[in-house]
Amino acid sequence: MLTINADRLWRTLMRSAEIGPGVAGGLKRLTLTPEDGEVRDQLKAWAAEDGFAVTVDGAGNMFVRMEGASDGPPVLIGSHLDTQVTGGRFDGILGVLGGLEVLRTLKDLGHVPKRPIEVVNWTNEEGARFSPPMMASAVFCGVETLDWLYDRVDDDGVRLLDALEAIGYRGEAPVGKPVDAYFELHIEQAPELYDEGIDIGVVTAGYAVRGLLIRFTGETAHTGPTPMDRRKNAIIGASYGAVATNEVGHAYAPLGKATASRLVAWPNKPGILSSFAELTVDVRHPETEAADRMRDEILARIAEGAEKAKVKWEVVSTWTYGEERFDPALVDLYRQAAKGLGLSQKDMMSQAGHDAYYMSRVAPTAILFSPCIDGITHNEAEDITPAHATNATNVLLNAVVARADRD
Amino acid sequence: MLTINADRLWRTLMRSAEIGPGVAGGLKRLTLTPEDGEVRDQLKAWAAEDGFAVTVDGAGNMFVRMEGASDGPPVLIGSHLDTQVTGGRFDGILGVLGGLEVLRTLKDLGHVPKRPIEVVNWTNEEGARFSPPMMASAVFCGVETLDWLYDRVDDDGVRLLDALEAIGYRGEAPVGKPVDAYFELHIEQAPELYDEGIDIGVVTAGYAVRGLLIRFTGETAHTGPTPMDRRKNAIIGASYGAVATNEVGHAYAPLGKATASRLVAWPNKPGILSSFAELTVDVRHPETEAADRMRDEILARIAEGAEKAKVKWEVVSTWTYGEERFDPALVDLYRQAAKGLGLSQKDMMSQAGHDAYYMSRVAPTAILFSPCIDGITHNEAEDITPAHATNATNVLLNAVVARADRD
Repeated sequence: MLTINADRLWRTLMRSAEIGPGVAGGLKRLTLTPEDGEVRDQLKAWAAEDGFAVTVDGAGNMFVRMEGASDGPPVLIGSHLDTQVTGGRFDGILGVLGGLEVLRTLKDLGHVPKRPIEVVNWTNEEGARFSPPMMASAVFCGVETLDWLYDRVDDDGVRLLDALEAIGYRGEAPVGKPVDAYFELHIEQAPELYDEGIDIGVVTAGYAVRGLLIRFTGETAHTGPTPMDRRKNAIIGASYGAVATNEVGHAYAPLGKATASRLVAWPNKPGILSSFAELTVDVRHPETEAADRMRDEILARIAEGAEKAKVKWEVVSTWTYGEERFDPALVDLYRQAAKGLGLSQKDMMSQAGHDAYYMSRVAPTAILFSPCIDGITHNEAEDITPAHATNATNVLLNAVVARADRD
Repeated sequence: MLTINADRLWRTLMRSAEIGPGVAGGLKRLTLTPEDGEVRDQLKAWAAEDGFAVTVDGAGNMFVRMEGASDGPPVLIGSHLDTQVTGGRFDGILGVLGGLEVLRTLKDLGHVPKRPIEVVNWTNEEGARFSPPMMASAVFCGVETLDWLYDRVDDDGVRLLDALEAIGYRGEAPVGKPVDAYFELHIEQAPELYDEGIDIGVVTAGYAVRGLLIRFTGETAHTGPTPMDRRKNAIIGASYGAVATNEVGHAYAPLGKATASRLVAWPNKPGILSSFAELTVDVRHPETEAADRMRDEILARIAEGAEKAKVKWEVVSTWTYGEERFDPALVDLYRQAAKGLGLSQKDMMSQAGHDAYYMSRVAPTAILFSPCIDGITHNEAEDITPAHATNATNVLLNAVVARADRD
């Protein structure tokens, strides 16, 4: 079995961890900010050191290329370098820099793969600055258009295209191209592997995700004299919805999860009832039918809460993903690689969203998980050990090479 | 009985309604904005037309003065010209412009009062841009310091002193001076007078108000894989608190009222659990003991909700006002004036906060209410009829003159 340069991988991860530091040991490297520009420049510099060409497409996706013995669609490895506001040092980052380490190792070994191998850094996987998440892989896969992506606006009113041009990463390449296969290494973002002491998670499928953006409409009025039975406070409608979401999540635990992740109101000031509120609801379950049932129960309870609050409500946007089943051949490459390296492994489902979900629509795709300590993620305390990074990247290396070198 | 020029009063109110128009027929004239500067300039121009001197104090409070036959502390009439984000055309405004009409009428009549009469426009009664409300009358009455007022900051990070200087209304006069008595005319902001068809409300006391700012502290984590039983989402803690506040309000209705008026969270984004939230709670009841009991029940339920949400919570700020009892002699002047004018009247309590609450600590004070249609206020649909304005201002006129001319 091939093995990577573990020290080099860890040094590379730690160098990334210096770019866009948070306040508590993690990262705040929101997409298309100057910090994101800086880590992109660093990735380009690393590629240049080894003579790997870098292509940037119109959505800012970056492709680091190792040529193969023959041309043709590349084997693609990827993830993302952007983070949440309170992000960790490994979420997404391990996938990109682990991919870079695969190329570096092959170069060290003088191993020219039969097919080209590329490593992609997807723009805005997190959706923390521009919503929704996984936006640029969605365009790459034809799920959304490039104009739609350019028109997304952040909470400060900045248009995505302007932010992309400001950091100099609106590339010339068209968005989307044929790909032989897509491999994604990611930290698990749940405590299962870590709690059970297992080295590698082989992801066979995703949790069904149901997203809802609910809008509540009430009426402004004075917080003092307005009789309780004449009030239409949108904050109360949204709060009933948040509580219902959480309680349905608990009712379906441990498999089901439901989150009220965002609640905004207007005018949202002391002295006045709010006429407007929005609630973002996120439902996940390994079984599609159960996810749909959770969503329907939440909607029924939102209707009850809105009636109590005397506010109108409507679902203004929905999103659905995660029911992908990954490519059995690629899944088996991970299993064989882990077995060959003597690592413990288990099959699992991904609960978080990943760019691989969209990629599975256009190419054979599979995700590989490494443990993360206590399952903590989207938090600056997110952490892994060098051994976690090494083991998973060794599996990635052998699986990718097996794919790239097949007849 | 003396009577005002009703047409002139209405024209003056309608001129004010042109300054800082909202989007639905009301006003958006937040304190210390250019629109507030414009209406202040208009008040100064109106005063100049009739030769009334205008003094501005260090907090931006404006005093329009009619000299009396003798000097000494003035009889003061006042309210405010600032509005909520979705404000009406009469809330506060009727009190200031009704006061101006009192001065104009006395000038028309050649009636020189024994004591000087002044009309005050208090800075930032609403608290909609800079919190808390009734800030400048609090400083006038020695409840807060002027430096404290200057240091308040709006949601855009603008310091109050800078906003005050930007519109040119940081005056030279010291904040606070002896006052013979304080009269405030205000729309009721509740539907009682309007529903019962009564012309005049004589305010004898205020509702006890208990304000709370609660902070919830949780932990950021991923909305997807994080197990339900490991979540500490501050939005859920705050939402339980908002629901509890509303339900306690309903349990104590119709006398008691409780409002969740503001709910903010951070990061408050899709994909992540929020580590921070704040909830503003406003409790009102005519009986002090019941207001305290409502507050305590809400706090107990907030503790339960925080436990379910696994978040920490603390009360970071509290405020208390409204238990003032108004001056019996002034209250009786309103009653006698209404009776003399043949208007129907009833004694009532004020549920909203007013600058009169603070003024009652330093001078004999009483508030007069006029009906507002359907009790709608802090809403652009707020409305009154010309007759409502005329009747109430006639009562104000006769009560003020009786006070100013007493031996």
